[in-house]
Amino acid sequence: MLRLDPGEGRVRSARSFTAWEGGGEYNVARGLRRCFGLRTAIVTAFAQNDVGYLLEDLILQGGVDPSLIRWVPYDGIGCSARNGLNFTERGFGVRGALGVSDRANTAASRLKPGDIDWDGLFSAGARWFHTGGIFAALSETTAPLVIEALKAAKRHGTVTSYDLNYRPSLWKGASGQAKAVEVNREIVRYADVCVGNEEDFSACLGYEPEDSSLSALNIESYRRMVGRVSEDYPNMQVIATTLRTVKTASVNDWSALCWAGGTVYQGMELSNLMICDRVGGGDSFASGLIYGLMAGKDIPTALNYGISHGALAMTTPGDTSMARQGEVEALMRGAGARVER
Amino acid sequence: MLRLDPGEGRVRSARSFTAWEGGGEYNVARGLRRCFGLRTAIVTAFAQNDVGYLLEDLILQGGVDPSLIRWVPYDGIGCSARNGLNFTERGFGVRGALGVSDRANTAASRLKPGDIDWDGLFSAGARWFHTGGIFAALSETTAPLVIEALKAAKRHGTVTSYDLNYRPSLWKGASGQAKAVEVNREIVRYADVCVGNEEDFSACLGYEPEDSSLSALNIESYRRMVGRVSEDYPNMQVIATTLRTVKTASVNDWSALCWAGGTVYQGMELSNLMICDRVGGGDSFASGLIYGLMAGKDIPTALNYGISHGALAMTTPGDTSMARQGEVEALMRGAGARVER
Amino acid sequence: MLRLDPGEGRVRSARSFTAWEGGGEYNVARGLRRCFGLRTAIVTAFAQNDVGYLLEDLILQGGVDPSLIRWVPYDGIGCSARNGLNFTERGFGVRGALGVSDRANTAASRLKPGDIDWDGLFSAGARWFHTGGIFAALSETTAPLVIEALKAAKRHGTVTSYDLNYRPSLWKGASGQAKAVEVNREIVRYADVCVGNEEDFSACLGYEPEDSSLSALNIESYRRMVGRVSEDYPNMQVIATTLRTVKTASVNDWSALCWAGGTVYQGMELSNLMICDRVGGGDSFASGLIYGLMAGKDIPTALNYGISHGALAMTTPGDTSMARQGEVEALMRGAGARVER
Amino acid sequence: MLRLDPGEGRVRSARSFTAWEGGGEYNVARGLRRCFGLRTAIVTAFAQNDVGYLLEDLILQGGVDPSLIRWVPYDGIGCSARNGLNFTERGFGVRGALGVSDRANTAASRLKPGDIDWDGLFSAGARWFHTGGIFAALSETTAPLVIEALKAAKRHGTVTSYDLNYRPSLWKGASGQAKAVEVNREIVRYADVCVGNEEDFSACLGYEPEDSSLSALNIESYRRMVGRVSEDYPNMQVIATTLRTVKTASVNDWSALCWAGGTVYQGMELSNLMICDRVGGGDSFASGLIYGLMAGKDIPTALNYGISHGALAMTTPGDTSMARQGEVEALMRGAGARVER
Amino acid sequence: MLRLDPGEGRVRSARSFTAWEGGGEYNVARGLRRCFGLRTAIVTAFAQNDVGYLLEDLILQGGVDPSLIRWVPYDGIGCSARNGLNFTERGFGVRGALGVSDRANTAASRLKPGDIDWDGLFSAGARWFHTGGIFAALSETTAPLVIEALKAAKRHGTVTSYDLNYRPSLWKGASGQAKAVEVNREIVRYADVCVGNEEDFSACLGYEPEDSSLSALNIESYRRMVGRVSEDYPNMQVIATTLRTVKTASVNDWSALCWAGGTVYQGMELSNLMICDRVGGGDSFASGLIYGLMAGKDIPTALNYGISHGALAMTTPGDTSMARQGEVEALMRGAGARVER
Amino acid sequence: MLRLDPGEGRVRSARSFTAWEGGGEYNVARGLRRCFGLRTAIVTAFAQNDVGYLLEDLILQGGVDPSLIRWVPYDGIGCSARNGLNFTERGFGVRGALGVSDRANTAASRLKPGDIDWDGLFSAGARWFHTGGIFAALSETTAPLVIEALKAAKRHGTVTSYDLNYRPSLWKGASGQAKAVEVNREIVRYADVCVGNEEDFSACLGYEPEDSSLSALNIESYRRMVGRVSEDYPNMQVIATTLRTVKTASVNDWSALCWAGGTVYQGMELSNLMICDRVGGGDSFASGLIYGLMAGKDIPTALNYGISHGALAMTTPGDTSMARQGEVEALMRGAGARVER
Repeated sequence: MLRLDPGEGRVRSARSFTAWEGGGEYNVARGLRRCFGLRTAIVTAFAQNDVGYLLEDLILQGGVDPSLIRWVPYDGIGCSARNGLNFTERGFGVRGALGVSDRANTAASRLKPGDIDWDGLFSAGARWFHTGGIFAALSETTAPLVIEALKAAKRHGTVTSYDLNYRPSLWKGASGQAKAVEVNREIVRYADVCVGNEEDFSACLGYEPEDSSLSALNIESYRRMVGRVSEDYPNMQVIATTLRTVKTASVNDWSALCWAGGTVYQGMELSNLMICDRVGGGDSFASGLIYGLMAGKDIPTALNYGISHGALAMTTPGDTSMARQGEVEALMRGAGARVER
Repeated sequence: MLRLDPGEGRVRSARSFTAWEGGGEYNVARGLRRCFGLRTAIVTAFAQNDVGYLLEDLILQGGVDPSLIRWVPYDGIGCSARNGLNFTERGFGVRGALGVSDRANTAASRLKPGDIDWDGLFSAGARWFHTGGIFAALSETTAPLVIEALKAAKRHGTVTSYDLNYRPSLWKGASGQAKAVEVNREIVRYADVCVGNEEDFSACLGYEPEDSSLSALNIESYRRMVGRVSEDYPNMQVIATTLRTVKTASVNDWSALCWAGGTVYQGMELSNLMICDRVGGGDSFASGLIYGLMAGKDIPTALNYGISHGALAMTTPGDTSMARQGEVEALMRGAGARVER
Repeated sequence: MLRLDPGEGRVRSARSFTAWEGGGEYNVARGLRRCFGLRTAIVTAFAQNDVGYLLEDLILQGGVDPSLIRWVPYDGIGCSARNGLNFTERGFGVRGALGVSDRANTAASRLKPGDIDWDGLFSAGARWFHTGGIFAALSETTAPLVIEALKAAKRHGTVTSYDLNYRPSLWKGASGQAKAVEVNREIVRYADVCVGNEEDFSACLGYEPEDSSLSALNIESYRRMVGRVSEDYPNMQVIATTLRTVKTASVNDWSALCWAGGTVYQGMELSNLMICDRVGGGDSFASGLIYGLMAGKDIPTALNYGISHGALAMTTPGDTSMARQGEVEALMRGAGARVER
Repeated sequence: MLRLDPGEGRVRSARSFTAWEGGGEYNVARGLRRCFGLRTAIVTAFAQNDVGYLLEDLILQGGVDPSLIRWVPYDGIGCSARNGLNFTERGFGVRGALGVSDRANTAASRLKPGDIDWDGLFSAGARWFHTGGIFAALSETTAPLVIEALKAAKRHGTVTSYDLNYRPSLWKGASGQAKAVEVNREIVRYADVCVGNEEDFSACLGYEPEDSSLSALNIESYRRMVGRVSEDYPNMQVIATTLRTVKTASVNDWSALCWAGGTVYQGMELSNLMICDRVGGGDSFASGLIYGLMAGKDIPTALNYGISHGALAMTTPGDTSMARQGEVEALMRGAGARVER
Repeated sequence: MLRLDPGEGRVRSARSFTAWEGGGEYNVARGLRRCFGLRTAIVTAFAQNDVGYLLEDLILQGGVDPSLIRWVPYDGIGCSARNGLNFTERGFGVRGALGVSDRANTAASRLKPGDIDWDGLFSAGARWFHTGGIFAALSETTAPLVIEALKAAKRHGTVTSYDLNYRPSLWKGASGQAKAVEVNREIVRYADVCVGNEEDFSACLGYEPEDSSLSALNIESYRRMVGRVSEDYPNMQVIATTLRTVKTASVNDWSALCWAGGTVYQGMELSNLMICDRVGGGDSFASGLIYGLMAGKDIPTALNYGISHGALAMTTPGDTSMARQGEVEALMRGAGARVER
Repeated sequence: MLRLDPGEGRVRSARSFTAWEGGGEYNVARGLRRCFGLRTAIVTAFAQNDVGYLLEDLILQGGVDPSLIRWVPYDGIGCSARNGLNFTERGFGVRGALGVSDRANTAASRLKPGDIDWDGLFSAGARWFHTGGIFAALSETTAPLVIEALKAAKRHGTVTSYDLNYRPSLWKGASGQAKAVEVNREIVRYADVCVGNEEDFSACLGYEPEDSSLSALNIESYRRMVGRVSEDYPNMQVIATTLRTVKTASVNDWSALCWAGGTVYQGMELSNLMICDRVGGGDSFASGLIYGLMAGKDIPTALNYGISHGALAMTTPGDTSMARQGEVEALMRGAGARVER
């Protein structure tokens, strides 16, 4: 999606916007490429117009291979297929971040099973496949496409990860959340790694937390909930959840927990983290975690890659990280913020 | 519509956009209000989100009364109704202006006969009603709505004007232009004033020009064509057409012709007019002409109000004019461009 | 007034400025219109030049009806009448906000009794009239004009409010503050609602606080002071004061107290409120409070509308609020600053 | 003065301004310093506030010595003394440049005879003193101050120049232009060098051109007019006039004529000169001419320094030149505009 | 190189710069990739610091494969190796474009024979290799490296092209141009395609034009000169030269000639081409020509690809083209600059 | 040096930069001039190109006399001499400030003993000479030049100060820090006032702190260390060290200690100081301290001038302070950050 960002002002009275790109899967692919040096590609579809070309321009800048993007003819008004947009502001202090998604009828949402040659793709040696709950919710055809992809990945030994990423706006209408639970429960049966935030496990998979107080989500109650998850979905090898306490839009506490092999790990805790732009923090957590797992780090280290990368991503504007691996690792070592020169 | 303008660069590689508002009817209403001091309102529909609020903010700045806008609930993704957007660049020299319209499924395009209380509106004393061929082409329901409005205006003695404004992108698909001709022929039967550019009479109403050379559109061949138009549509009292010779994107010849009461008038000719942003030039022509007619000027004077206002509108960025009436009249008097201080 | 804002830099070394509009009464009118949906107008005078047109452009954007503005001819240099300006920076941390007012000889300051048809205005059904101590201090003629207006409002049953708004720069010269006290004591005899900050009651009305420590202004001493005020001015029905503890230019504690019907209410307290631009916080407090009173809310609720609206106004640049009513109410309910998407 | 420039847009709808400095005498001093490497200072007065500090910051950047500026206390609102402002836009094509001067009651306009120690200043070795008709017109006291200065300069052998610079807005009111003629006729009796544009000799000194057609101002009629001037004011050693034919705001023909020692010289002619910002073109002509005279060049060469410097100054935004001497001389040699790298 | 561009102002008084990337070979590679859809890579070296990362970011955006870039350790101050910079302004009207190159001691200039595995590179199937006279002039080691590369390309059947690109600043010092001729004469013995502007054949290869008047460079004298070139260097299969007449910095006449197989072709002529930023026009000519040759077009068509692509590149800021193939071809067909929407 | 600042983003993905000037000695000279009103000049060398002219433009704006700058011819590529650059970002929260220095082979670094007429300079009445460890480290010739200057200053009774300013990047390579200690130990034998941060005394002079914990640097251990320093260098009359605890890049604790006449003074402590841009904080400390000493303030007062000026300098972007003396003194008195208007 193209993100239009009004900077320190608000969408509703802006006279100019900065353009960024975003999207759950893309943000992860970009982080793995630009911060961690891995080669990545994005599978999606764009309408063939100058907004699509702008997205390609941003994706190229992000280092992500655009050659798997399907280009759909544009009809001149956006009836048959569009490119997704969002107008999203950052928030400040007591004023929360706020976004308007304008992503109905996108070329991406019209992708359907059979459109992508998954076997060709995975047999070519892709080591990891990541997708998430936003894409799965875009239309009636995207969830089946996700399942098709996950199954194909499994056939070829490609590791899969899924970010639950619950967005109420995507599940509106009658039986919205119930439908979300139904869809996601089916999907996660095929995922090796499952990522979410505190609320996603409840909203997407239907697990009621024992302790309803978000700010008190502790390792014990999480252990019990995730124990149930891991029993229900024995396919999952890693289950990770970010922990964010929103003190204000500009100051959050930030950490994460991770279950693997029966053990729950508590990652590094960044209290009173200053936030420039929170959008994409969870995606940068995912890419950090995935890097750690792909690089063969132990679970606590991989988890801290995620926390540190997510934290740095939120110190800059835009949905994606501008950090480099050395900075992520320095923050993991507890390095301060002295000037380097 | 919200226009996102990349300035001197191009949409496809922009990292920031200036936001303007536009839309044929709105541009006319804004010009009448801000340049010529008349009170105007806009009848349309917006999806209720921050993009819609931004459009309202721009419309308020434009001095146009937004109280007749219908606010439609937003579903969070833009499936049931959206707000229209366009990404439009200005062109420069040999590089033409270029726009991407993203206006399918807008709240405005879903307006339909019965939605608007035209009788209430016109009986309250509206003196003039202006609409055009872009709105009529937006969906299956908008052309009938236009006809409903024009008929109601007639009932209440409100003068009506219609800008043909042919846009190929709106009439794509099988039998596109034929459909355009069919729809517009029906509509113009109810218009008192009809405005277009050189090509609109052919593309929208099916009149083949005798002389196919655009640059040589002369008063004689125009007189004959418009004679046929006025015979076919005896309801029309004024028929005006802008004349633009695009030497480059930055330099145009600009003038207009006008038929009224059996006579064809040639307006002032601005050769080698420097163009900053051509978008909206035709709409500012229309508002200048309408002002002249409403103010009781004679036809040649009213025509020159249109030409002069359109010319000034193209010296500034954005779709709408930033001129004031005194400046329009000074240019009509042939005033030079010396500094005023 | 036109505000020229150097952004994160300082006036004294700026090379560009953002333009905002401001002014005590206007800010209140804009807040009532754009945040709370009420129709408002501004009574003032502008010199007729492009700076005046720019102010009108900003006022139109603000949704405030400019039709009551008196346009005074401009003499080309600003001798007979000017438009008011201020160059104001926001401050940051230990560096306080700083402003240069350039508002002598404005068209507004030359308004005098008899210039405005108050009876015509109030008899047309205006429900509320708000003005304040800055306008009253602009010249020898503005305080009598304020009194004329307040008396006329009373005749027509229009509720009146007055913001004390002491500005030392306006009361310079011999016997400056004494003069301020004399003028304001006369004016407030005609106000139904009186608003100020901690220092205004002392500086404008001459009430010495029992407890000189600003940060310890407590409900008890306020009750006693306001008790004396309400005895001295039995016309007052609501007396409200904002409480701001300036920890740094970027972090304030923010709350307000309100006396009504013999009772003093303590509003919600926002500790360590992050400040983007504090200018206009008091005006947005006033508009929130007035909305609450006009909407028939109880006093504590109306007070919290003021506190919440003032707080949100300070999270964005410019003198006025960019908030909408739903956001004000969400903050009143204690909503956090999580992203909404 | 501080100039606020809306860039490609217009003052009346701008949301940001670029800040430049300007003023006839200052522009000349800055050009002599930054383009031609001479040491210069400015004699004026500023109100002591952050707008004044900003002007000082700009003057320092301009390399002009600010130590002779008188700093006048600021009263907080601008009643006793202000700093001058103008909001000026550039024009484009058929839309002329447009400015709003807001310079009444400035500290500079309140300077009066006796305020400046001219003898001290000139006896310290100043080689040249330049002033002009805008400053002389600011108030009742500035023309006498100019005469006082010119006389003092004469006493100390400092060469003097005077730019007629007629501004209608400064001479409004009863008998405006007649007063201008009276004042300027008195002043020019003390000037060694007199500069103006085509219209200044008529408007400021009352010489009716034989040939009223501006565009046909030819060397013969100029010779006759200047012959009369040189007879009437035998003190004048050089009389120069710029010739500007405004084809559009963006394209001017640009040249100048110069009388010296009984001969009239026609300088180089730049036809169809592209104009970015015409403001200050005449002042940069003056500084080029003065440099040529001070450097002992012959009159035709000095004249071309003026024409070339004025032309280059109009290729950049702002009132002052960004050119360097080598560029001025290259253009005088007829160098083309190929890239240098 | 990183280009820092002051926009409409000048380097010498800028307070902000836009960052672009540039470099002869890179510009060609980017044009072939983003305009014409071919896969390209760049062989160079960067110092490993954030300026190098920024260059990589820009190259990625350009779609050019950065994997062949050698990253050299940065020593913290730029002594052992730097990244190249230039501060370049566009010019306007009579003011020419102007640039400061700061490219001594770059990592790229320190590349030397043996550093690059040319055989590995060309044996992997590269179809075309392009380089030029700027790189060859950077240091004592770069010309031998160019020769090494051209010879290796020949061994593997890769077509080679060489842009003479004479830059006086690179050949300063004793016997500068003589050295340039010596070096380039050796290099072009290995090039299949040779590109230059009117002056390059003289400055780089020592051919004195028969007709010294640049503006009159006609097809006859070019035929004779190029006949001598083709006899001296029988290896050359295509020799092309751009023709630019600089009327002003903003208006150029633009065309090109091409020799192939004994025939000289005159390409399309664009008179009075409006120029936004001329830098990189020659490189975009080269990429258009190369595309045409690679795509098997006939020589006149390939030549027009070059002229058209070069022209469009100069309508946008920055060193590289923002055009797409369809636009290039439309201009070749003589399409006007009407708006497309 | 020219600083290129990417604002809230990062160098590595910036598309525009703000230009500032900086450099240890210059920052001190500018602070003394613009904040404290003393006349100052800078002794350095620039390559003669537009980047050098831009630096001169910035220095002029800074009020610092540029007439002692040596202008070295530019060779067109920067081989013989360049102008120094740095690309420096501010940091935010957990992300530290980060800079790339590109200052090898600058004209300044090539200054050597004998180049400057120190005796002429100091005999003309310079009261104070300040330099530091960055300049001394630039090349083999700059440390001897510093010593030459300090000795000359001593001869003429000019007070000297030296800022240790250790930069690891300048002392890379074998025996880097040991060389730094050797060089600085020699230099400080000639300085009257020595300034540094907590780490400089160890890194530059080889004093091992008794207590290695930076955050616990207390007055006792400092007293002992500085006692040893003052014994080893009896020439030193004042030794000052800034104390900065970097909680995050955006929040620091800030204070300083000062030894003089055998006593150690602890300055005012600013806890949780909000930081906009920390670069240059130490230099503004030095200029505040020097002002205090030159103005004859007692040591604690002079020390607080330094702390306060350094703190204010870090509330604005750029390397230098935008504060004025009254603001520095208000902060010293503990003034809050309420708005002044």
